[in-house]
Amino acid sequence: MIDLYTANTPNGWKASVTLEELGMDYNVIPVNLMEGEQKQPEFIAMNPNGRIPVIVDRDADNLTVFESGAIMIYLAEKAGKLLPTDVKGRTEVMQWLMFQMGGVGPMMGQANVFFRYFEEKIQPAIDRYQNEVKRLFTVLDNHLSDNEYLAGDYSIADIANWCWAKTYFWSGVEVDDLQHLQRWLDQVGARPAAQRGAEVPGKLDKEALLKSAKNIVVK
Amino acid sequence: MIDLYTANTPNGWKASVTLEELGMDYNVIPVNLMEGEQKQPEFIAMNPNGRIPVIVDRDADNLTVFESGAIMIYLAEKAGKLLPTDVKGRTEVMQWLMFQMGGVGPMMGQANVFFRYFEEKIQPAIDRYQNEVKRLFTVLDNHLSDNEYLAGDYSIADIANWCWAKTYFWSGVEVDDLQHLQRWLDQVGARPAAQRGAEVPGKLDKEALLKSAKNIVVK
Repeated sequence: MIDLYTANTPNGWKASVTLEELGMDYNVIPVNLMEGEQKQPEFIAMNPNGRIPVIVDRDADNLTVFESGAIMIYLAEKAGKLLPTDVKGRTEVMQWLMFQMGGVGPMMGQANVFFRYFEEKIQPAIDRYQNEVKRLFTVLDNHLSDNEYLAGDYSIADIANWCWAKTYFWSGVEVDDLQHLQRWLDQVGARPAAQRGAEVPGKLDKEALLKSAKNIVVK
Repeated sequence: MIDLYTANTPNGWKASVTLEELGMDYNVIPVNLMEGEQKQPEFIAMNPNGRIPVIVDRDADNLTVFESGAIMIYLAEKAGKLLPTDVKGRTEVMQWLMFQMGGVGPMMGQANVFFRYFEEKIQPAIDRYQNEVKRLFTVLDNHLSDNEYLAGDYSIADIANWCWAKTYFWSGVEVDDLQHLQRWLDQVGARPAAQRGAEVPGKLDKEALLKSAKNIVVK
């Protein structure tokens, strides 16, 4: 059994969608980010960076893994699914996973901060990150114009990018003109495992989310 | 033989330091970022994201790999070095590699943009990123207080974080109070392979760099 410490965020969903897709049994331990539970000593002992998700594999000598990208690789390798073993296939998945880790994730994160949370409205910063997100989405759209999935068969690269890209409204970025990205968002989103995983630890209420954003102040 | 398309940046050095450390033969093809060579069709055909580094492995059916993190994993797995094969050791390296990919790299990148390049001086954005970089450095410092390297033996996790962290002055972040981070920066920096790799495609001239920053305008 795997313990999953998580919250309702794209990085959290990356772990839960992967677990669902692999059909692994797991316990969900919700972490209340607004209460700062991820900065408490018990949590820092698991992840010194104080971020969700974290997994503890009770069947593997309580191996603890932090960083959503590392968790996905660990789970996929454990199950022997969602990450090819041949060098070429594996490398293609890794590069699109890294594209999310170093690009889509951080840039959408910064767009969210300046568009949704920041005390001051700093238009040049909002523009910078929304433009960069749109550019990254366009890279995905072009690639998906002649590829069903990002890297061969459905893989952790799709899960990682989907968990972030599907929240485009939250970053204030439109995708109306990106038909291949939309096709893929819908296609991944139709998978029962993706639907279940993206409701862990609970179904997200868009209205409540929009309301809560006003209470999050980042300086 | 491996062709390395690169430029003098932390992400470029991640590839060249890894190649040097593994003792692999490689050809360096410098990419002039100021001239936008990374946005030309020939380059986009290799990496649709238009970023260095990219490698082409001439001994592996011209397999092309983009994203510095994916390149490091590819090279380490090819050589069977710098990335353990046992699950625990491997997972530890992956999590600290991802810490750089999703944290240290993007946050130092944003600090550089607002501190060095941005048209307007936006103090809240400069503060945000410099503070976040300092926080991430403190996570590294704490971890290095009782670990010689980031994840067991010297690995691609050290190389990835070192290539970025050593440029702290460029992000305008001080490390005087982080003695363990400094010890590790010096220790990695004393390795001949790290020194050689960090001078690819050419030795960086600090003065010229500071001068050039004034000519880079990011809107």
